[in-house]
Amino acid sequence: MFDLNKIENPQFIQKLTIKEMKILSEEIRTFLIENISKTGGHLASNLGVVELTIAMHYVFNDTNDKFIFDVGHQSYVHKILTGRAKDFSTLRKFGGLSGYASVKESKYDVWESGHSSNSISAMSGFLLSKDKGAPINNVVSVIGDSSIANGMAFEALNFLGNHQDKNPIIILNDNKMGISKSVGAFAKMLSSLRGTKVWRGFKRFLNAIFPTFITNTFHQIKRGFKGFAQVDNVFEDMGFDYFGPIDGNDISDVIKALEKAKKMGTPCLIHLLTKKGYGYTPAETDEVGHYHGVSPFDIKTGKPLNVNTNPNISSYSKIVSDILVQKRKEKDFFVVCPAMQVGMNLKEFSEEFKNDFFDVGIAEEHAATMAAGIAINKKDVVLLMYSTFAQRAYDQILNDICRQNLKVIIGIDRAGVVGEDGSTHQGIYDVAMFNHMPNIKICMPRNAMETQMLFNYAFEQDSPIVIRYPRGNDNIENYYVTNEKLDMNWEIVNDGAKAVVITYGPDVDKVLEVVKKNNLDVMVVNARFIKPIDENIVRKIIDYDMPILIYEQVVSIGALSSSILNFAYNNDLVIKKMHTMGFNCDQIIEHGSIEKVLNAYEMDCNAILKEINKLI
Amino acid sequence: MFDLNKIENPQFIQKLTIKEMKILSEEIRTFLIENISKTGGHLASNLGVVELTIAMHYVFNDTNDKFIFDVGHQSYVHKILTGRAKDFSTLRKFGGLSGYASVKESKYDVWESGHSSNSISAMSGFLLSKDKGAPINNVVSVIGDSSIANGMAFEALNFLGNHQDKNPIIILNDNKMGISKSVGAFAKMLSSLRGTKVWRGFKRFLNAIFPTFITNTFHQIKRGFKGFAQVDNVFEDMGFDYFGPIDGNDISDVIKALEKAKKMGTPCLIHLLTKKGYGYTPAETDEVGHYHGVSPFDIKTGKPLNVNTNPNISSYSKIVSDILVQKRKEKDFFVVCPAMQVGMNLKEFSEEFKNDFFDVGIAEEHAATMAAGIAINKKDVVLLMYSTFAQRAYDQILNDICRQNLKVIIGIDRAGVVGEDGSTHQGIYDVAMFNHMPNIKICMPRNAMETQMLFNYAFEQDSPIVIRYPRGNDNIENYYVTNEKLDMNWEIVNDGAKAVVITYGPDVDKVLEVVKKNNLDVMVVNARFIKPIDENIVRKIIDYDMPILIYEQVVSIGALSSSILNFAYNNDLVIKKMHTMGFNCDQIIEHGSIEKVLNAYEMDCNAILKEINKLI
Repeated sequence: MFDLNKIENPQFIQKLTIKEMKILSEEIRTFLIENISKTGGHLASNLGVVELTIAMHYVFNDTNDKFIFDVGHQSYVHKILTGRAKDFSTLRKFGGLSGYASVKESKYDVWESGHSSNSISAMSGFLLSKDKGAPINNVVSVIGDSSIANGMAFEALNFLGNHQDKNPIIILNDNKMGISKSVGAFAKMLSSLRGTKVWRGFKRFLNAIFPTFITNTFHQIKRGFKGFAQVDNVFEDMGFDYFGPIDGNDISDVIKALEKAKKMGTPCLIHLLTKKGYGYTPAETDEVGHYHGVSPFDIKTGKPLNVNTNPNISSYSKIVSDILVQKRKEKDFFVVCPAMQVGMNLKEFSEEFKNDFFDVGIAEEHAATMAAGIAINKKDVVLLMYSTFAQRAYDQILNDICRQNLKVIIGIDRAGVVGEDGSTHQGIYDVAMFNHMPNIKICMPRNAMETQMLFNYAFEQDSPIVIRYPRGNDNIENYYVTNEKLDMNWEIVNDGAKAVVITYGPDVDKVLEVVKKNNLDVMVVNARFIKPIDENIVRKIIDYDMPILIYEQVVSIGALSSSILNFAYNNDLVIKKMHTMGFNCDQIIEHGSIEKVLNAYEMDCNAILKEINKLI
Repeated sequence: MFDLNKIENPQFIQKLTIKEMKILSEEIRTFLIENISKTGGHLASNLGVVELTIAMHYVFNDTNDKFIFDVGHQSYVHKILTGRAKDFSTLRKFGGLSGYASVKESKYDVWESGHSSNSISAMSGFLLSKDKGAPINNVVSVIGDSSIANGMAFEALNFLGNHQDKNPIIILNDNKMGISKSVGAFAKMLSSLRGTKVWRGFKRFLNAIFPTFITNTFHQIKRGFKGFAQVDNVFEDMGFDYFGPIDGNDISDVIKALEKAKKMGTPCLIHLLTKKGYGYTPAETDEVGHYHGVSPFDIKTGKPLNVNTNPNISSYSKIVSDILVQKRKEKDFFVVCPAMQVGMNLKEFSEEFKNDFFDVGIAEEHAATMAAGIAINKKDVVLLMYSTFAQRAYDQILNDICRQNLKVIIGIDRAGVVGEDGSTHQGIYDVAMFNHMPNIKICMPRNAMETQMLFNYAFEQDSPIVIRYPRGNDNIENYYVTNEKLDMNWEIVNDGAKAVVITYGPDVDKVLEVVKKNNLDVMVVNARFIKPIDENIVRKIIDYDMPILIYEQVVSIGALSSSILNFAYNNDLVIKKMHTMGFNCDQIIEHGSIEKVLNAYEMDCNAILKEINKLI
């Protein structure tokens, strides 16, 4: 009935009946399943918000109504309704449609995100701008139940609840899931709200039946009354009119709730119960989070296509996870992970050692300091996060872990270019971020074996250490369990006389391949410890008097090249020629396959060859 | 009656009667007022927790009971009771007693802090360690009403409330103040709790009178009942047994509450109402926060000693504040400041333009993203924070402000060595932290005039910019209001042929003085823009072929020297000799006067002279 590819803007929704909107919902679902089964992408969350997104465009149809999607990976339906269905074959591909909201892509995208829980803060800024005459009508944000339990969202609720003159409309999209099941006391509280009767604008209602002087004087009576009705909750305590719980997949109920909230003029929170994966059985029944972000899959079976069937190929996440499972059998330690257990492949550890595994939800700050609290009591702890999300815990890692010089082993996954998730997710800042923190060591393994040996090393230290590893795989055919450990020294993995390339991580082998393939007389150094640097080898290298190339898949400023140069100059060593290959910190690294991205930003093998040739 | 200087450990408290404890409280108050009037320090918060701290040591007297003080500036009474009264004349002096909890100082200090709101996360770590056999008995944390409203504290409550098998004892020290009056919806909610009757362990009580199956089945009845009694609150919603509100300055009430909580075995929160500044009228009646951290003062009048009476001397905080007041008269913009309005001298602005000023409480993350939300709508906004607290917003500044390339003017106060507050407060990381973020400019004015001209410049940009300024004063005798602006170029402020010193901020004049005083033939460059660097001048300087010294009051790695070296090498410019003076990132910079600290870490004028002499 609808040709989604021909939608240019969401105005057509105004003319639809509820019945037609339901048909539209079905067609969007079919479209999403068909397209994402081919391209991969965020499926389950988008299937859950089809009705909501249609309702939002129906109720908030002013050109100055602003939608802010928390994280933004659940904005696919919004993309379809605002004229981007035709581009879905390019989803998350280099130069194609972003997997998140994108200001560049459409005037209907007014805020970009990628990291969770900042939508309510952004919304606060929109509402303040409105006061100064910015062309803004309603501001509506959509935030998930896991995201709203993050500290930053709480800070923003605390702010807006105290500004009763503003009218934020916050839609709590409660599907009981973040990427996987929501955790924490707040999730329990939401769960208790779920079972209650539907109430809308209850505070208003009470205020209407009790005159103000009575409600003020007999506040206890009012609360008592509300207590019986069980709508008294943390949101109302914080100054919001609470509407809910509402079936978020019932489009007419959602429309009614949005219309009510639109008329309020005060802070409102609409609590929608949606079903993640709604309309696609494999995604609906998934409690683990496999369908949160999927690779291409077979629609009939729900099974992923292009599955790695080679048992010798393993992701670094899995390699680390296996190391931790193995290690835990030998020694006692905790694993703390803020809501990344699916991506970091921690199922086995979390099940086998469930008393030692703590998924604290989207709470990087808390995770880091809790790890410090463990380590200060001389108990071992591994803190696991993606590079990009570790940014949320900068201060806690610096002050609580590093300043106090505590033994926390920080596993940093998704280090380097991450590919399809794009600019908000690149793991290109962590080296510069950790490199100036006190007492911390930073290392990156070249392969699976080195990963294990670096963990062996880390567990024997008594100070903080970062082990960073990339999104990607290694061949583990010759992998074996060992107690060997790597020490802080670097390794010359190839001799050569014309130039030296210093790099770390799996990039060591990438560089090696370039050198071998092109028969270059070039030394290759595995700088597996980025901090501290191996001063002996650096002295030797400078002594060789060959041009030096430093290749790092991170922003250059503050990373390894800065450490080497700083050391050299303060020791009066003269480097005659050196180039750095890394990201310019003023570049935004967009989405696309890792290969395409490295190529586009001149960081691939060809670029390495070119740079070497410039130097020799 | 008590000789506080002779206290060696808190065991003596066990033998005291309530009456004697009251006398002890009085004597501690007198001691605090007398000592802090001489040394300066945190007065008001410590006067408020005298009874609480005595009660804590009375009730929790096991050697393995652990006290975690949030921020730690309210641990003076604890220091007195644990044998450190005799050292109070050295408070906050170099080599002396720290103004915060300090693990080095005493075995009774088990956690160091300085940044707010991390105590509950640390406590979580302690409780987990206990499960693995760490020698820990009770874990008690003390957190203020402003600090608990921070997102990180919320994340930790969310965690612990969900672990009913653990027994955290959280003491909410509610004095209605952070540094100044608490703000936000949460503060309002606490305020509504303050007016209620005293209830202790109410949840337990209800569970006792209603059998479980009834409380589960008729949950609404229970809530209704609780609603009438108005003890149903966010803490209970999140799984804590709430005890309160309790008069925190009534020692026997406090002891009773602590003893009850000690027996619970489940998560408890004790809500104490204390009076900040209790027992010292000028501090009691202070609503602004002058007595939060004081310099030496006259006990009788409460007035500070050694007041700057020279109208020509102004702090940088005041200079910036005056600039913003002046500017606001010319153009429309917001100022957003997370709980630092007193230290940043923003009283005038906040009163004169109260609709444009937002103190969002201790919520740096929210503040930064809210500023981004304003700027994306093309409205001007100035975000003001201390260097050290900006660390809390690393991810938000990087992702929301810089990645989206939004015009937020970030004023960074307390940049460089801060003095008496010590290691948790040093402003030595911000340059390295901002330097690798996209699109952002970083500058530091040499003096008051440059400060104004840099703000003039900043308001004309359309991208993010950091203007950092130190704790300290400038002579504003020749200051005048101007529309002139500084552009991104550097300035050669002294000619010379033997060496070049590149520096920025008021350090330019410090270096200049060294050069002039010692008749050195040395060029001095004011690198007022740290990012981007002035490539023309850098090229010239390298061309001069003189040795280069870069002096920065920050950690070197990732700061200006890294930018210069990176630029030089990638442009095949050869620097023959260069040294950097800055902090080694593995050093912890302790407390003491700025002068003493710079001397101790070889960053003062003598050290500069020594380095120059080494180079020429």
